[in-house]
Amino acid sequence: MKAMLAIPYGTRDFLPLEATEKRIIESKLARLFAGWGYDEVVTPTIEYLDTLTRGAGTDLEPQLYKLFGKDNKILALRHEMTTPIARLVASRLQGQPLPLRLAYISSVFRSEQAQTGRQCEFYQAGVELMGAASAAADAEVVALAIRGMLVAGLKDFTVCLGQVEFVSGVMEQYNLSEQASDALKEAMEKHDLVLLENLVDELQLSEQARRALKELPLLSGGQEMLAQARELALNATSRRALDNLTEIYELLEAYGVADYVKFDLGIIRDFSYYTGMVFEAYTPGLGFPLAGGGRYDHLLSDFGEGTACPATGFALGIERVLLALTRQGLQRPEAAKDVYVGYAPGKIASAISKVTELREEGQVVELAAAPGTEAEARALANQQGYSRLLYLQ
Amino acid sequence: MKAMLAIPYGTRDFLPLEATEKRIIESKLARLFAGWGYDEVVTPTIEYLDTLTRGAGTDLEPQLYKLFGKDNKILALRHEMTTPIARLVASRLQGQPLPLRLAYISSVFRSEQAQTGRQCEFYQAGVELMGAASAAADAEVVALAIRGMLVAGLKDFTVCLGQVEFVSGVMEQYNLSEQASDALKEAMEKHDLVLLENLVDELQLSEQARRALKELPLLSGGQEMLAQARELALNATSRRALDNLTEIYELLEAYGVADYVKFDLGIIRDFSYYTGMVFEAYTPGLGFPLAGGGRYDHLLSDFGEGTACPATGFALGIERVLLALTRQGLQRPEAAKDVYVGYAPGKIASAISKVTELREEGQVVELAAAPGTEAEARALANQQGYSRLLYLQ
Repeated sequence: MKAMLAIPYGTRDFLPLEATEKRIIESKLARLFAGWGYDEVVTPTIEYLDTLTRGAGTDLEPQLYKLFGKDNKILALRHEMTTPIARLVASRLQGQPLPLRLAYISSVFRSEQAQTGRQCEFYQAGVELMGAASAAADAEVVALAIRGMLVAGLKDFTVCLGQVEFVSGVMEQYNLSEQASDALKEAMEKHDLVLLENLVDELQLSEQARRALKELPLLSGGQEMLAQARELALNATSRRALDNLTEIYELLEAYGVADYVKFDLGIIRDFSYYTGMVFEAYTPGLGFPLAGGGRYDHLLSDFGEGTACPATGFALGIERVLLALTRQGLQRPEAAKDVYVGYAPGKIASAISKVTELREEGQVVELAAAPGTEAEARALANQQGYSRLLYLQ
Repeated sequence: MKAMLAIPYGTRDFLPLEATEKRIIESKLARLFAGWGYDEVVTPTIEYLDTLTRGAGTDLEPQLYKLFGKDNKILALRHEMTTPIARLVASRLQGQPLPLRLAYISSVFRSEQAQTGRQCEFYQAGVELMGAASAAADAEVVALAIRGMLVAGLKDFTVCLGQVEFVSGVMEQYNLSEQASDALKEAMEKHDLVLLENLVDELQLSEQARRALKELPLLSGGQEMLAQARELALNATSRRALDNLTEIYELLEAYGVADYVKFDLGIIRDFSYYTGMVFEAYTPGLGFPLAGGGRYDHLLSDFGEGTACPATGFALGIERVLLALTRQGLQRPEAAKDVYVGYAPGKIASAISKVTELREEGQVVELAAAPGTEAEARALANQQGYSRLLYLQ
């Protein structure tokens, strides 16, 4: 293909059917989020590099698409929406009564290896609930994420709940250095159990401590697993984390969505700002999460002076939902095409009156761009997928 | 404000009310375009620089936000949607039966002086009708642009129709050099009548020719003006252009939208790809067009090998529509906030059942993030703009 016809690495076009599916799912999610009291915001595609790294850490810089602004400051395309929304809450929305419930549906950009379901530009729908520290707030965002996947048409998925303070608490109780803890967490984030075991074996620890640390990524299951995890929780931090998960789970039962939920205490999310409950949603046949999120109580204080502002939220990957619907053979949203109107030479004015009338009735109507025979009109109507032909002669 | 709280030059945040208005208007436009048989497409925010300049010319390069891709080719943020859609039609949609009716709602980027109603990142909704050379196709896109402004809530606007071939024809008939023609067109595009007069006076032309050229930007009005313009049309090109406008106008009468239309033969659009009918829509109190478009019959052959593909389309500026609605005091779309649910300590599970029930009925419901007294719940409900409070104790 000629260079000018190609598109950059990691980007994609949504052809008519795909773009229609995307719009229908996004509209449903926008309606759902609004129905739960979340107000949509739209932030710029471009932010100052400083803003983005302030939120998610400078580690992330290689993932960013950078560009130069008029003032020679370095700009970058947003890589996620939580940081821009924290920036907005700390600036133009400062002083608004809390809690703030905000929603977004936006494209974000990461200059990394493209993979199925995750291009370098991809679309996310999500919410942020800022100014509420309660387990009720966490349960609300998890329940909303589950409702989001349901309204998008998914049926079979599991939300895995973790708690970063449980992992930190267990590491604390064995007096691991920050460096050692970070290395172990990185291995857990990569799901690299061999690396984790090797790292644990290199540490000067009791046999019991080694076993506990190696067991961390395997702590996955229902409520019975929480009892097992409680045996590993030897300090207040890790016990509080388990109490928090128990409380969230009870509220998810009240929301009627607990059947979609299990625990996975090995979950370490990709951004460093998480401070409490974290979750990821998985569906069969897709090796990466459809949605993810969690609590981040310090991000806002990185932007504002005043006190910390507790916050929680999630993001759902639109392309991943579309891919899951396709792979699972589920019904995908579709646009109707009702009437194709063709006309003989000289009959365009009456054809225009007719299409105007049909469109006012709410029908999807295409008018031939030129006069033709009835056979020609029928062929075009079929080609374009219209269920009815109207021919004016 | 601290640097990390600022946003880059020429960008903006849409706060909750503004973002809601934007979503409602975009949804209405998406439904309207679909109702006329236009299929939405989504293209990447980033394109190769070569692709964008192929479409709209290298003059445009200083306006583009550039960045480097992984393959060290120069990338740029799209500055409009017609060129990316032409690229798509010449590549992945090649061989699809014509005509193709495509629609988009996207943000585009221009690194230039920001102004009210036109930031460096802004949102456009529009359509492209590709593969149809008829006046019927032009009338369809103009009528659709008018319906678009009406569904967005605007009442008072004028669509000014021009024809770039009329201007070219008049210049041709006086044997102006390409350089001289381009200079005159540039002065017309900038609405700089003094510059135009000076340029005309520098040319070796008859008094009658000078008068005709100076009169061009003033040829604005109803059908009676077309008769006056016909006196200036001395060659086939300029006469054909006037016949084309007459035909389009008659079809707009059939669409019932001719009252919104006048002629302005001085319109020169900002992109060089236009080849026939062009139009711009204006509204009182806004010094720039709300919408614009026209016919561009050669853009696709710049991408493809084969034959040229006639095409026509328009784009509507979403922020400009929002600004016009505000300035004209017209009703702006608004989101409803129905019920705020508060609860006493220990009552959260029954509060969750209640909100689930109300949301299933389609109501917009916010659940308090923490228990509180009835007075506290009432204060929060008022703050957030809910019309009803439900308190569970």
